[in-house]
Formats: sequence, C-alpha cells, structure tokens
Amino acid sequence: MNAGPMKRPHTTLPPSWVTKLQPSKPHGPDLLSSERQNSVIDPNILANLLHTKEAVEIQRRVLEVLQNDEVFDKTGNYFGSRLEQFKTSLSRGKRLHQLQQAYHWNEQEFACALELIGDSTAYAIHWKGFLSGIREQGTPEQQELFLRRAEKMEIIGCFCQTELGHGSNVRKLETTATWDPSDQTFILHSPHLTASKWWAGTLGRTANYAIIMAQLIIAGKEYGPHPFVCQIRDLVTHEPLGGIYVGDIGPKFGYNMVDNGFLLLNQVKIPHVNMLARFSRVDPKTNTYIPPESPARIYVTLTKIRCALVLESARNMARGLTIAIRYSAVRCQFQDPAGNPAQIGETQVLDYTMVQYRLLPLLAESLALNFTGQATIAFHGETKDTGKVGQPGNSADSRKEVLAELHATSCGLKAYATSAAAQGLELCRRACGGHGYSSFSGIGNVFKDYVASQTYEGDNFVLGQQTANYLLKQAQMVAQGTPSESIAGKNLSRYAAVKNEPIRFSLDSDGDLVAVFGWRAAYLTFKTLQQSLIPGKTRNQLQVAMWKLCTAHCQFLVIRGFYERLAVLASTPTPEPQLGPEAREVLWKLFRLYAVFLIQSEPYDFFASKALQVEQLEHANTVMFMQLLADIRPHAVKLVDAWNLPDWLLDSSLGRYDGRVYEDLFQRATQSNPLNRISVDPRPYSSTIIKDESVSGARSNL
Amino acid sequence: MNAGPMKRPHTTLPPSWVTKLQPSKPHGPDLLSSERQNSVIDPNILANLLHTKEAVEIQRRVLEVLQNDEVFDKTGNYFGSRLEQFKTSLSRGKRLHQLQQAYHWNEQEFACALELIGDSTAYAIHWKGFLSGIREQGTPEQQELFLRRAEKMEIIGCFCQTELGHGSNVRKLETTATWDPSDQTFILHSPHLTASKWWAGTLGRTANYAIIMAQLIIAGKEYGPHPFVCQIRDLVTHEPLGGIYVGDIGPKFGYNMVDNGFLLLNQVKIPHVNMLARFSRVDPKTNTYIPPESPARIYVTLTKIRCALVLESARNMARGLTIAIRYSAVRCQFQDPAGNPAQIGETQVLDYTMVQYRLLPLLAESLALNFTGQATIAFHGETKDTGKVGQPGNSADSRKEVLAELHATSCGLKAYATSAAAQGLELCRRACGGHGYSSFSGIGNVFKDYVASQTYEGDNFVLGQQTANYLLKQAQMVAQGTPSESIAGKNLSRYAAVKNEPIRFSLDSDGDLVAVFGWRAAYLTFKTLQQSLIPGKTRNQLQVAMWKLCTAHCQFLVIRGFYERLAVLASTPTPEPQLGPEAREVLWKLFRLYAVFLIQSEPYDFFASKALQVEQLEHANTVMFMQLLADIRPHAVKLVDAWNLPDWLLDSSLGRYDGRVYEDLFQRATQSNPLNRISVDPRPYSSTIIKDESVSGARSNL
Repeated sequence: MNAGPMKRPHTTLPPSWVTKLQPSKPHGPDLLSSERQNSVIDPNILANLLHTKEAVEIQRRVLEVLQNDEVFDKTGNYFGSRLEQFKTSLSRGKRLHQLQQAYHWNEQEFACALELIGDSTAYAIHWKGFLSGIREQGTPEQQELFLRRAEKMEIIGCFCQTELGHGSNVRKLETTATWDPSDQTFILHSPHLTASKWWAGTLGRTANYAIIMAQLIIAGKEYGPHPFVCQIRDLVTHEPLGGIYVGDIGPKFGYNMVDNGFLLLNQVKIPHVNMLARFSRVDPKTNTYIPPESPARIYVTLTKIRCALVLESARNMARGLTIAIRYSAVRCQFQDPAGNPAQIGETQVLDYTMVQYRLLPLLAESLALNFTGQATIAFHGETKDTGKVGQPGNSADSRKEVLAELHATSCGLKAYATSAAAQGLELCRRACGGHGYSSFSGIGNVFKDYVASQTYEGDNFVLGQQTANYLLKQAQMVAQGTPSESIAGKNLSRYAAVKNEPIRFSLDSDGDLVAVFGWRAAYLTFKTLQQSLIPGKTRNQLQVAMWKLCTAHCQFLVIRGFYERLAVLASTPTPEPQLGPEAREVLWKLFRLYAVFLIQSEPYDFFASKALQVEQLEHANTVMFMQLLADIRPHAVKLVDAWNLPDWLLDSSLGRYDGRVYEDLFQRATQSNPLNRISVDPRPYSSTIIKDESVSGARSNL
Repeated sequence: MNAGPMKRPHTTLPPSWVTKLQPSKPHGPDLLSSERQNSVIDPNILANLLHTKEAVEIQRRVLEVLQNDEVFDKTGNYFGSRLEQFKTSLSRGKRLHQLQQAYHWNEQEFACALELIGDSTAYAIHWKGFLSGIREQGTPEQQELFLRRAEKMEIIGCFCQTELGHGSNVRKLETTATWDPSDQTFILHSPHLTASKWWAGTLGRTANYAIIMAQLIIAGKEYGPHPFVCQIRDLVTHEPLGGIYVGDIGPKFGYNMVDNGFLLLNQVKIPHVNMLARFSRVDPKTNTYIPPESPARIYVTLTKIRCALVLESARNMARGLTIAIRYSAVRCQFQDPAGNPAQIGETQVLDYTMVQYRLLPLLAESLALNFTGQATIAFHGETKDTGKVGQPGNSADSRKEVLAELHATSCGLKAYATSAAAQGLELCRRACGGHGYSSFSGIGNVFKDYVASQTYEGDNFVLGQQTANYLLKQAQMVAQGTPSESIAGKNLSRYAAVKNEPIRFSLDSDGDLVAVFGWRAAYLTFKTLQQSLIPGKTRNQLQVAMWKLCTAHCQFLVIRGFYERLAVLASTPTPEPQLGPEAREVLWKLFRLYAVFLIQSEPYDFFASKALQVEQLEHANTVMFMQLLADIRPHAVKLVDAWNLPDWLLDSSLGRYDGRVYEDLFQRATQSNPLNRISVDPRPYSSTIIKDESVSGARSNL
C-alpha cells in the first residue's frame, strides 16, 4: 500500500515529478502548425476582408491597451461568485471610461474595447440604452440638460421598459405617467405588482437615473407608452429617492456581471421637461397631446439595434468555432482504419466526417451572417440617410415601403441570426466532447450570456410573426398586380410569373443555389397566403406556418447576402493585397456548403415546391455535401484564424492559438482554482465540512 | 423632482406601499384552477400509471422527511458561490447518509431522495460509481475487504476512467498498472501529463479511495484497461498519500456542487488484491493473465446505466415542461382577435399555436421516453435474469444476439433520449420568454447540470455510430437470408419482403403510424448498407448517414414503445381505479401528436422511402398536427400535474402549482437576494466599488 501522508498541504503547488510531465505525442503546437502549413489561405488578408483593414488595426491598438491593464486581468474570470463578478464589472466599467477619455476613443474603438473585454460591464445599459435613448428621443434642450452630464458620467442611467407582467406587448405596460396640469408635472406610478419594471440592466445597483416607459395619461385618457427621464437615487448617498423601490432581480442563467433590476414607483413627480419630447409631447399650455409627425422615424431607430445584432451573432458564433475547430485539430481519438498510415498515434477528430458535419457548416454560416449583417447595417444606414421624407425621388409611399422592408428584414434576420448563433455555440461546446463542459473551454459562459439575445430586443418568435405578416402582404400585392420593389416583392413576382412553367435549377450553378432558396420561400408564402384566405382560419392557427415561412425567407436572404458579397469580391479590384484564386475558391465552397447544408437539413419543401427533383436532392445530400466537407477540411484552422479573435478575448484552454490545450487546462485547474485551497472532512457523521475555516473564504484574485 | 433620499438603507425590506401591491388580473391561481376544471384527466390516476402507485407513495413519504430537514432547505440554492455550493452538497450528502441509515431506505427510496434534493451531492460517485464498481467487478473476498467499509462510508470512493487526453477511446488510456512479480504488487503510474485522470466526480476534494482504470502490463505486454482499487488520501488527515497528486478540475458549465477531479500517480504500489478480479485477473503464482470467461457479462453491466438514463431523460424533461406549461397558462400577452371574447385582459400564451407547437410535442415526448425507458429497463432486467449461458433454450449464439440488441438499443436510446431532453429543457426555458432567463425559473440550472449527460457514459455521437453498426449488421443478415429475432431484424425482414410491392399506410391507423417509422428506418438502413458496399467508401465517409440512421431507428423504438404501452393499457384490467375513456383518448392523441410532430419535422425520408405520399404528408403536417394541438391544449396543465413533481423539487417561481408566479419572483428578488445588501459608488473616478465593505461579503444563507 502507499506510504504515509505527504507533508505538503493540499494541492496548490505541484511536486516536481508533476511539473516534469509532458503531454503525450502528437503535441498540439505541432498539429496546429502543420494545419497552418497545409492551407493556401492568408488569414491576414481574409481578416481584412471580413472586418475591414481599419477594424483590424483598431483591434490591435485597443487590445494592447487593455491587455496591459491589470483591471482587465482575466485570470479570475471563471472563479468569481456573483458578487465578485459584479464588483469586477463595475471596476472594469470605471476603468474603461477612464481609458476612453484618456485615449479619446471614438465609437468604434470603444465598441471594440467592450468586445475584447468579453464580459459586459455594470455600465452596460448606461452606454447602450440611456445615452442613445436621450440622443434619439430627446429635444436639443433635453440633450443639454441630460446628455452632457450623462456623457461625462455625472449621472448614470438605464432604460426601463419591460415589466414583471409584460414583455413582448409593450402597448400594455402598466406603469402610468399622469399629466398634472396644476403644477405641470407628470406623476409616475406603479398601480400593481406586475407593473414593476423588471430586467432593466444597470438599474439594480448602479444607476441613479432611468428612462422609464410609461402610459401617458392626460385628463383620464391613455395615449400609449412614452419615455420619461427620472432620477431614482441620490447623487451623493446613492440611496433610492422617496417613492422609489429599486433593486437587483437576482441571479440569471448568464450575464451575472450586470445588475438587471426592478423598480416600483409610488406617485413620483417629475417636471414637464423630463418627458423625452423629440417625437411626441404634451403642450403644457393647452394640456393636449402632440403626436409624432412621422411615426416612421421612431421605426428607423428601433431597427438599428436589430441590424447590429445580426453582425454580432456572427462574431459570437466565431468565438465558439475558433475554439472548437482548433481543439478538434489538436484532439486525437481512435484510429481511422482508412486514415493516413503515416500518422503518429490516433486520428485528429477534425478528420471524422461526423465532426466536420457539425462544425464546417457553422463556419460557413458565421461568414454568411457576417456578410449579411454588414449588408443589413448598410441598408439601415442608407435608409436613414437617403430616405428622408420630401427628398426628391422619394415619395412618402416609397419611403414607407422601404421602411417596412427594413423593419421586416431586421426582425426576421435578428430572430434567425441570434437563434442560429445560440444553437451554434452549443454545438461548438458539444463538439469539444467532455472538456467542452469545463468553464475553461471558454464556450459555456459565452453561451450563457448570449442566449438572452433570443429574447431581448423582441422575442424571436414574436419577431418572426411580424416578418411573416410583411411577406403575406407582399404576396397579396403581387396577387393584386402591384408588387413592391423590395427583395421579397421581386422574388415573389418572379415566382408568380413562372411557377407553372417547367423549371430546372442546377445545383452546379451558384446563382441557381440562391434561386432555389428564393423559390422555396415564395412557394411557402403563397401557400400560407392561400390558407389565410380559408374562411374561419384565424391568424393564430397560421402561426406555425408563418414561423416556418419567416425562417425560409431569412435563409434566402442570408444565402443571397453571402453570394452577393463573394460576387462583388470577384469583380472589384482593390489596391490591397488580395486573396489568391485558390483561397477565393475556398470561400465559394463555403457558400455552397452552407446552401447544401440547409437543403439537406430540410429537403422536403425544396421538393414539394418543385425547386429540386428527388435525384438532385439525393445528390446534394450525399455526394456534394460530403465532397464540400472534404474540400474545406484542410482550411478549417486558417479560416478560424482569419476571424482574428485573440487568445485574450477567447480566454480558452481549448482554443489557444498555439494548441497547448492540455498544459493550459492543467495549469488553470491546479494553480488558479480556489477549491483546491480547502480541505474537507468527508466522514458522514462528522459535523466539520471545511477543515480549516480560515482559508475557506478562498477568494479568487478578483 | 423627487423628494430627498430615504432613510431606509438599500432594499432588503419593502416599504408598506409595496407590500400592499397585488398583481393585475387575471390572477395566476384563478387561471390554473380554471385549467384544472376544464380537463377530465385525473392526475392522481395518471401519476400511478406513469410511475407506479408504489413510487408515488415512496415519493410522498421521502418528501416529507426531506422537506422538514433544514439541511435541505433550498432558499439559498440559487445564490451560492461555487465554494458554498460544494459545502452545501457535502453537508447534504452527510445528512442523506444519516437519514438513509435512520429510515432504512432501500435503493428506490434512496434514489427518490436524491432526485427530490434536485442537486447532486459531493458523494455522488461514491454512491453511483464506487459502490457499484466493487459490487459488480469485485470477487467475494474484495467485497468483504472494500464493500462493507464503503457501504458504511468508512471509506469514500470515486471512479477514475477518463483522462486529460482520452475520453471516448477507453482502450487508449495512458495510466499503467504494471505487475511486479518480485513483491506481488501492481505499480500504478501516469507516464504523461495527458494520462492525468480527469473529470472523476467526488475525486477532487472528497474521496479517499478510487477505482482506477489502468492499462494492465505483465512482463512488458499490455492487456488493456482494468480496474484497480487505490487509496488516495489518508483516512485521518485527509491529505493525499505519497505519489498522489489530486485536486478539483475547476468550474464547469453546471454540476458545480460536485468536485470533479484530476489524479496523477507516481509509481504508486498497490497489493495484488486491489485489482478487481471478478472477470479477469493476474495469477500471482504463474504471473499470467487470466482473461474473462464471458466478456458479455461486463457488457450487461455497462448497459444498465444507459437504460436508466433513458428513463431519467423523461423526468428531467418533465421538470422543464411542468414549469413552462404552468407558466404559459398564467402568462398573458396580447389579445388574440379570434380568441374568447369573454376573456378578461390578454390571452394566455398557451392559447397561441406557436407556443403549443413548442411545448405540447415535448409533453408527448416526455411520456414516450418515460414508457420506452421503463420498457428498456425491463428488457435489461430480463436479459440479465433469464439470459444466462447454459440455461435451457438459450444457446450461446442467441444469448450473444440478445446482448448485442440490448447494447445497441441502450446506446442508441441513451443518445436519443439525453439529447432530446437537453434540447427540450432549453425549449422550455425559452418558452418562458424573458423570465425563463432568471435562475428563479428553475429550468436553467437543470439544463446546465443535465447537458453533461450527452457526453458522459459514452458521447452521444460515438454511441450513435455503434447502434448504426449494429443495424447495418442486422441488414446484412437479412440480405444473407439469416435475419435475427431482434426488433430491428424483424423490422428489416418485413421491409425487405414487401419493399417493392405497392404499400399504403394510413395516417388514421395508430398501428400504421408505428409502421411508417419502422419503414423509414429500414429504408435508411438498406440505403446506407448499399453505400457501404461501394468500393473505396470508408466507414468514416458514412458517419453522417449512420447518425441519421440511428436517429430514425430510435424514433421507431420510441414511437413503438409509446404505442405498445397504450395498447397494453387498453387491454389489461386492473383492480386500481382507471383512467376513463376520455382521458385514455387524450393519451392516444399524445401518441399521435408525437408521431405527427416527428413526421412534420423531417418529412423528406418518409416520402423518399415511399412510406407516405405527398398528399398524406401535407395533411399530417397541417390539418392533423394543428387539430391534435387544439385537442390536447385543454389538458396540458393536468397532464403536467400528473408528472407529480412537487414544488419543492421544482424550486421555481414560474412553475408553482398554485400559479402565484409574480409574487414568488418578487419575493425571491427582494428578500433573498444578497446583491441587494450592498451599495456601490457608481462614479467612474471614485476608487470605491462597494460602499460598506463590511457587508460586502454578503453571504446567502447556505
């Protein structure tokens, strides 16, 4: 039997026989460098293409600042309790503001810093909701009054819309803002427990101001929800003001570094100037409501965030992919009998088609969403800049049409992209096998934070219905002979014109690959339109069909977005170094892979719509799909390198650029792990749990 | 503007104007009681049917004991840091052992207690892996030596198989156990860093013994992995013994109450008796290896856990469903224009077909997996009891066949059921909208713990390949005219016999619904078999097809399991009170719903295999499916009531039996939440983070 107990307490420092141990061969660094030798792709050129050269350069500069600042040291990130996480997030928020001022970071640089930190900060909604709320909905006078101080962070705000009893249906919010003509104030009030504001980030502990969405009431009449600025805590003591009951709503699935809060108001009076009045207002002289001149303008503002979420989805998915693909190139399991006989040891799991099947289509999807997200943001920018009412060539009608398209596109793509990325992150985590479950994989925490994006800024299932409604209207316009000029309108017209003629799309044509997605979407739209016309059929009974229709349309948009970007790439010469033809062909193969992957996932409607024949589907699902996986496999590591996500951002043992996976896992477990600083009494009848309680408060180094 | 700051510090106790607030109408309790009035189902009778009357009674008794024991008080569950979680889990483990002794709980009662506690305990693997490992793999002498002490918990053990560098491929484990004939000992050793045992639960901080899987080496020759018992910590000081480096591997996605650990061994000597020798051993006189008489016996042991996981999947899914369905009956959003005009306020979200689409098929799936899990466990029991070699009527060959079927079935169903439940839990969480993201939903933490089941006891993707391999062999036997008597063998024979004849399955026949799933599975099996015969086609290239094949076969098994249980129910009279015909019809509708749901999710292969025509698919996907949702909707709440999961287990604001959702969320946020005991300084240039550091260690009441 073993010798007696060792003298060394617990496990903090490994003994010398442990520190001498090496991983068995083949080593991660060797595997990754051979991966990188075997692909023609230049990740730097591709990075510029994905993100723009300017963005790559900004990231390099900002990363250098953050990485050398000890407030942003990440070594304790995976160990903190909720309280420690929140303290860290407030410290980081403070430091970030200081750096922003010191380096005069512009919006893009600041956004880059937020992304690199990886976690959100306690000021999240001050920056993302309060400032923009006042900027977009405040009058010049209100900007002077609130925005200047908020930018300097003399006041710290949040944005309170959702209530305990109401999320999706904003019109039914219960909080009231009653106009009191006697002293020209609004009285903010929570009439029920369910009226409590709930979920607002930065509200729970941090903010001293809030924008509060409340039902405007004048002389007993309701005018719907409007935004009001309200101070909630004392600027010196930070105690809640009278009539305010405020706090943190408790732990969540993720995002625990932010203090999402609740807020109840008991007849709180605010002055007239605190109603944000750029779009609509109360005339204090006449006590009447002045409605917005153009409701469409609020529309444009609301869509902006959704467009940004599409691009963000791609970047979040890329975090998981970079980790999963690098680790799958390092991790070896079993020996493929048909594999390379010269190989040392077992087969890299990335060589198994079942692993390729799970990861490479996601890689293609991340690029597709990246390009589509960029295009959607550009579409939003154009609409905002060129679509002004009264501008020559822009009739009010055509403007309304473009806004409707922008709204429907941003709703649908937000729903599609955030759901795809959330699912993709979980697929990446699982593709890492057992170690994917460790926090050190670096994927789990991103997933926990990210899944909320499927609900915020509009629940995806609710948004999907809005997009489908738009599509049904577009189909109706086609049926009535007045098709719109939107993408959907043109697609539906094209389909309606030729749907009864014998068509034949070729899987060998990239253009046709886009066309079959358009065809299927149009087929489903008209099919659903037809059902909606059956007497007695309610909209509720169509919801499932409408959700599927929205998904099909979004796939068409994303496939189209991917195609158009690659087509432009092929035809536009630039002064910068360009991807060689071989590398460009890899991008086209990723486009095809994504298309064929979607087809083989749900072949039925491609067949039922007569877009593709059974033989074509069988060919796509087996031969084409497997061949594309094999063709892209050698480039997988270089492709994720091109996403240009630094190790500091990934904070992952499995996704290290250098492939030193096992050393990193071991080091984090043995040297940073607070649980290893305690010793327990495991005997069931001993009342001692931790043996030396003085060290049991073992804190991470936060 | 508001009055000055309030005197009351922070937010711990709500002021009286807050405590007087009520949720707006309709109230949750009213909605749920009207749900319960509108269904004929008797949840008590159905509970007995789902779980057996005996199990329901055990749960009632055990719950009473646990609920009144303050060690199991759950009010702090969602707030603890990892260290606090681990301390709680060790305390609860101790108390559970004490109660087990005091109440003489048998295996079923003890398992019930573990489930009701909800979280795992620090002793998890002592109970689940160490005891059973010695029982099943130890000789009578070894049981005397180790098992008696382990049962009394004089020694506490764990089970170490997975290594840092090896999970799925057990044959390639690196840890060695070298036989030393000079002193008749084994030398356990970790030759590389990647040989470190990794992931073993209860190892990190708790265990003082371990079963270690290591490569047996005799005179330089390897004999593959075998189990060895090894003491790792001192029984008095609890310090690691010499040559042992052991600790916790760090935080994980979930399951953080358990100390999953690592273990490195430096030439640790253990006596001959420590090799668990029931199946194979080293003869110390001749220094030779004695292989197992019947490798199949180990086989049976390994499948047992997988069968249990199938049943467990249903229960886990039911936790999410109970919460999501009750909350969807309480939560009201928007007004359905075609809804009941008499309704007060907005529409219950459970009335929206998009919500029904997401939840009701899962409800059907939970029953299907419950029945199939029970049948699989029974199959395992029969095989173990009646299939002994040498028993009359059981030739060695037919026994081998039954074991192969049991193995393939347990692998496939484990993969199918755990993935379905993990996905189902996430769907349930999302169906709760924004509040699903709160820890108080009670779903998120179950999901975080549960997803690991997709990887442990065999990664699902690896298991799926084994099932598909079995199916291909069965198809080959059919092709060779020697079909087996297994379910798969009979299904494949039937298909092969009539596949070229015109068939016509009817969607109105429940038996035919089972048959179309069998037909599709057989079609995919023969199709994949054909591809595997193409010269140059490697097994690796077939992995994706094999995964899909395994899934199709498992769906056939689950649909068949559901059908057979209901068929027995219809034909077997019992002395107990029975479900009335209306309630039984609801169960048949759930069977049909699950079948039609699976068909509409992936209609293509039903069409391609000629099991169903396009018109049938269109009818199933729209008319039948929507009608079944509508028919089952009124019974949804009573159906989850029948799962009989007590509020104490669910620990959920949203899933409360009484529907007091908003009061509960508010109470937990305001009265239990440690973050509300601190106040911060939010100004960016202040170095103070928490204003009163003395309260900042704000601990939950763990």
